[in-house]
Amino acid sequence: MDIIVFGGDGFCGWPTALHLSAAGHNVTIADNLSRRSIDKELKVQSLTPIASIEERVQAWKEVTGKVIDFALLDIARETESLNELLLRINPQAVVHFAEQRAAPYSMRGPTQKRYTVDNNVGGTHNLLVALAEHAPNAHLVHLGTMGVYGYSGNGFSIPEGYIDVEVRDDHGDAHVREILFPTKPGSVYHMTKSLDQLMFQFYAQNDGIKITDLHQGIVWDTQTEETKLDPRLVNRFDYDGEYGTVLNRFLVEAAVGHPLTVHGTGGQTRAFINIQDTVRCIELAIKAPPRRGDKVKILNQIAETLSVIDLAKLVASRTGAEIEFVPNPRAEAAENELVVSNATFRGLGLDPILLDSANLQGTIALSKMHKHRVDFASIPAKSAWNREREQELSDAAQTRKLVA
Amino acid sequence: MDIIVFGGDGFCGWPTALHLSAAGHNVTIADNLSRRSIDKELKVQSLTPIASIEERVQAWKEVTGKVIDFALLDIARETESLNELLLRINPQAVVHFAEQRAAPYSMRGPTQKRYTVDNNVGGTHNLLVALAEHAPNAHLVHLGTMGVYGYSGNGFSIPEGYIDVEVRDDHGDAHVREILFPTKPGSVYHMTKSLDQLMFQFYAQNDGIKITDLHQGIVWDTQTEETKLDPRLVNRFDYDGEYGTVLNRFLVEAAVGHPLTVHGTGGQTRAFINIQDTVRCIELAIKAPPRRGDKVKILNQIAETLSVIDLAKLVASRTGAEIEFVPNPRAEAAENELVVSNATFRGLGLDPILLDSANLQGTIALSKMHKHRVDFASIPAKSAWNREREQELSDAAQTRKLVA
Repeated sequence: MDIIVFGGDGFCGWPTALHLSAAGHNVTIADNLSRRSIDKELKVQSLTPIASIEERVQAWKEVTGKVIDFALLDIARETESLNELLLRINPQAVVHFAEQRAAPYSMRGPTQKRYTVDNNVGGTHNLLVALAEHAPNAHLVHLGTMGVYGYSGNGFSIPEGYIDVEVRDDHGDAHVREILFPTKPGSVYHMTKSLDQLMFQFYAQNDGIKITDLHQGIVWDTQTEETKLDPRLVNRFDYDGEYGTVLNRFLVEAAVGHPLTVHGTGGQTRAFINIQDTVRCIELAIKAPPRRGDKVKILNQIAETLSVIDLAKLVASRTGAEIEFVPNPRAEAAENELVVSNATFRGLGLDPILLDSANLQGTIALSKMHKHRVDFASIPAKSAWNREREQELSDAAQTRKLVA
Repeated sequence: MDIIVFGGDGFCGWPTALHLSAAGHNVTIADNLSRRSIDKELKVQSLTPIASIEERVQAWKEVTGKVIDFALLDIARETESLNELLLRINPQAVVHFAEQRAAPYSMRGPTQKRYTVDNNVGGTHNLLVALAEHAPNAHLVHLGTMGVYGYSGNGFSIPEGYIDVEVRDDHGDAHVREILFPTKPGSVYHMTKSLDQLMFQFYAQNDGIKITDLHQGIVWDTQTEETKLDPRLVNRFDYDGEYGTVLNRFLVEAAVGHPLTVHGTGGQTRAFINIQDTVRCIELAIKAPPRRGDKVKILNQIAETLSVIDLAKLVASRTGAEIEFVPNPRAEAAENELVVSNATFRGLGLDPILLDSANLQGTIALSKMHKHRVDFASIPAKSAWNREREQELSDAAQTRKLVA
């Protein structure tokens, strides 16, 4: 297949592009390299040293003989170039990772809130318009997030995108209707993925675009079979307060002898998936497109659920690290249940890598190997969700100063 | 109250600004005048001759002695000016009409689809960010649309924004949950209002912004008590294929002796409201804000429902016009029921003007008075919803040519 990976320079996009290339597809990466510019804006960097995109694709060619093309392209702004790319490649599938992906960054301030909406919603919509116009038969595979569901389990399993509800008509008779799971995003970032859902619904219905939306859990780990092949192919390992996801932050903290910082009580239960399974799932999704005219196919791309405190205990048990409770910058429930169906990917053959596996040891080793690159100042979360949380964070900092 | 009317130069915004000013509020209009530039883009104009915004506010001052300030501002782009305006006015309420409002225009082509999303979603989000930052206690009153609900009645009344549904937990026990009415927008324009809903939900929850979202029906008529006071205050009367709503198109067709063009079977049932009631509803909504921390208050701003064919028959009976059936450019159900609650506005004292009233005669007279300004070429709908509808429209045009 001819496949374009939008956002193919990022944490999920890069290993996906390699995996699809290794599987024999003709892969083109389109990316505006915004992840690299945001690193500069935040004065942070990946724990693993990241080669330039030119070096990356060159290394891939040297190691495997396979060619990945790269197009520097901002789909939220450069609509003419987007059209030209689609016409030139005429892809059977496009994978869409080209969205700002960090909830804390999306809550950092007005500029970042606006950027996240303009980039994610504008970019996704531009892509849909361009597909309807120039590649109406291409299958769009989009990376969504578990976060669109909110986390109000309370005895309910979260289904895959849709839920059957009973509604009463004007005579009081009950009717079953299938609806999109009512969305309750917890950040501007998650909100953009909720907006994406509605745009997908419209373009699937109005223009018959074939769309798969993958509601992914928190990704952990760094390397995949392909990124391990050469140091220049290494994947990102973000551990800073904005882009570092919880497990990677814990691993870096453990590597440098810092306590594992648990936000709030740690009672937040989240869904997790290994990066190796992310790339496998994308390939499985590409192989099983919906038909033209179908509703959007929504799959939960997760392996397991765990509370943050249990995750901290797991890392502590493997590394001897201590656990420290810090104020939660997020406006969210202190504790929640979370039961999620991942039936479709299980049915497609996914046998997921679990946290309690040998892979965790590999990631611990990787974080120790690069620990000289750790910048302590970048670890604490700095983006408060609203004025109240900002006050709490500032009060806690004041208390720490007084104690010290 | 100090009130900013964003989009206060448009069809609903202008009479609203006058009405609020007449009621004694300090009104500032903020508008990018995009409605005037789109007229130029489409080579169409309002049936009524529209004065410049400077002449409009000058006339208002001459006639009433009241001052309305005007700020030229694009909230989708000029975020710094937006911040400055909020800080300068420190409004108790802001009315948000600053969105591209025509479904056919939003489906005209890729450029208009993108503009509608970038302008409506970007502008609304920018406003929310600015309110959270600089005016967190201001009440945001937004003009939504009945179109977010879709039109699949089938024995169900459409409630005001929220619906109680029963969901089964993992043990099969039923629980009642209140959810946002599942949205099914029928155009890119309607889709943007669905996206607005989710952004409002998030900012009400995360930042405690007080928000009222008014799901309005199709507005008919032109003049209000205030716009009648001087010819320079006259309101827009759009009748072209993009911006002309169905009743106004029928009235112009009747005035010039053209058959009333019914799209499809005319079995589409829609909700209607008179422009005079629009401005009254906005004032009622401003007077009854939700409390900080409340969910978004959603009200259906409609007076009655009627099918398009019944509307055509009503106009025909008053004017002697003929009825002609033409292909429907929209991808929508040929016929639908529609029963809608407008309980809240009724409770707040609204006694709506109905289509079968003296007002209709006044609008007929107005359209006859300006019939020398009618441009026949601008009447037919030209925006097809998708490739299939485009083909149908083109086939029908071909047939007409052959018959002629």
